[in-house]
Amino acid sequence: MDTSHIARCAQLAMILEVSATPKPGNIDRDHNYTDTSFEHFLASAVGVYPIMEKAARSKSGVGTLIHEAVAESGKWQKGGNTHFGAFLLLIPLVMAAGRCENKTCLKAQAQRVVRETSVEDAVLFYKAFLEAKVKVKPVNKLDLGDTGSIDKIKAQGLTLYYLMEISCGYDMIAEEWTNGFKRTFECAASIQGKIKKHGINDAVVLTFMELLSSNKDTFIQTKFDSKKAEEISMRAKKILQKGDMDEIREEIRSFDESLLKEGVNPGSTADIIIAGLFVSLFKGMRF
Amino acid sequence: MDTSHIARCAQLAMILEVSATPKPGNIDRDHNYTDTSFEHFLASAVGVYPIMEKAARSKSGVGTLIHEAVAESGKWQKGGNTHFGAFLLLIPLVMAAGRCENKTCLKAQAQRVVRETSVEDAVLFYKAFLEAKVKVKPVNKLDLGDTGSIDKIKAQGLTLYYLMEISCGYDMIAEEWTNGFKRTFECAASIQGKIKKHGINDAVVLTFMELLSSNKDTFIQTKFDSKKAEEISMRAKKILQKGDMDEIREEIRSFDESLLKEGVNPGSTADIIIAGLFVSLFKGMRF
Repeated sequence: MDTSHIARCAQLAMILEVSATPKPGNIDRDHNYTDTSFEHFLASAVGVYPIMEKAARSKSGVGTLIHEAVAESGKWQKGGNTHFGAFLLLIPLVMAAGRCENKTCLKAQAQRVVRETSVEDAVLFYKAFLEAKVKVKPVNKLDLGDTGSIDKIKAQGLTLYYLMEISCGYDMIAEEWTNGFKRTFECAASIQGKIKKHGINDAVVLTFMELLSSNKDTFIQTKFDSKKAEEISMRAKKILQKGDMDEIREEIRSFDESLLKEGVNPGSTADIIIAGLFVSLFKGMRF
Repeated sequence: MDTSHIARCAQLAMILEVSATPKPGNIDRDHNYTDTSFEHFLASAVGVYPIMEKAARSKSGVGTLIHEAVAESGKWQKGGNTHFGAFLLLIPLVMAAGRCENKTCLKAQAQRVVRETSVEDAVLFYKAFLEAKVKVKPVNKLDLGDTGSIDKIKAQGLTLYYLMEISCGYDMIAEEWTNGFKRTFECAASIQGKIKKHGINDAVVLTFMELLSSNKDTFIQTKFDSKKAEEISMRAKKILQKGDMDEIREEIRSFDESLLKEGVNPGSTADIIIAGLFVSLFKGMRF
């Protein structure tokens, strides 16, 4: 496999996701947060090329690669954490793409990559988490954000896959790791199915809305609570029921403004959209 | 020099330029043309990474690299020509960056790269031009777009630098080649000078407006005439005289809408902005 091609698919996936608008509650081409802007996401996506290219060549080292991606992203922009959640999905997917003889084996290879993670991967994942300064409250049983956890991981010999297994009940990213990247591949199919009729921007927006409507976003659950996340999903569902993209565009826009005002950002949904875009581009989607 | 770092600076320069808004008359994050969209520019910028990386390692072959960049851009998007003019500036600048022992010698090295171009470079430049399907009327004395020109170039032994010399009186890109990338480095200084106060988007927009106000855009001259290009420059100048960015933002926006309606796109100005952004990023500008 052409490792440069794979790395560019990862870059473009991150760039197309952050560009898509209106993408309720998240940073997009029309919306910045106070300290983090659209351009920080663009610079981060461009900057991590060599880590993605290295991942496409790597047989192991998920934790190191996530750690290096966070560090490299930070060298290219001063907006803080941009792609931590996305890296958790992209790194194993990119490694899987590098192992593929053809474009159909991606899912099986991705499952292998995550299952083969080690205790060292878990330790480096935690280091990366601490350095990325992810703005979420601690949720994990191992208390994400507490350096004490690294000792626990080592003492108990916990692999990164195991950490994801104990989090998968309430964390969308962890669930992707443990259920064979189910939603990622569903998103990829949805984007590919919509791109001809809707174009790339609206294909991403509609898939984002569908994903949000059928899954409580982890980022919202962590920042607020499960009830809030459920309420947001219901609101997304109701909008989608009202009609086609052209009929609901203004409603999505109002939903976006409302979420931004409330500080509700469905960040985990965005991460899965990035993963879905990567799969689509890797499989040859062009526009 | 780190050739991957140089290639990523080129990618990010193209991405930041097309994202900056409101950028009068051109495609930006808020404006598409009928067949070419914002996302086509993003995909093109991402796609050409390996050619830029190769350029950073190359001592010669400007024509081949331009030809390869156009071909690679076309593999990643279906929006037609996106970055032909930008490649004409970026390829020699990226090659120069690859030759630099330190970040201060870029200008001198860039002058050397263009002066060393060959007849073969001229031939491949013409092939790239024909394949890029650049939407301009033929302007060059050698009749750009006419395949007969390739025979003329070979028969007369004309180098690519020589072709630029005979075009530099009416072509901004050719002028950059022959005057030591003067405006490119002025743009770089302007963007770096404005970024702290204005942020990256507005630093690019203001520099674009300044460049447009003081130079007749080649793309406009070719599509319309010299008088039209001069009129556009005057309009840009008058807006800039009215005050600071926050006071003139709405006027720039109206100017943008008006140019888009008239089909006036200052494409050559955008190309020089990309070159200026590349120089700034290569020299370490971050935000």
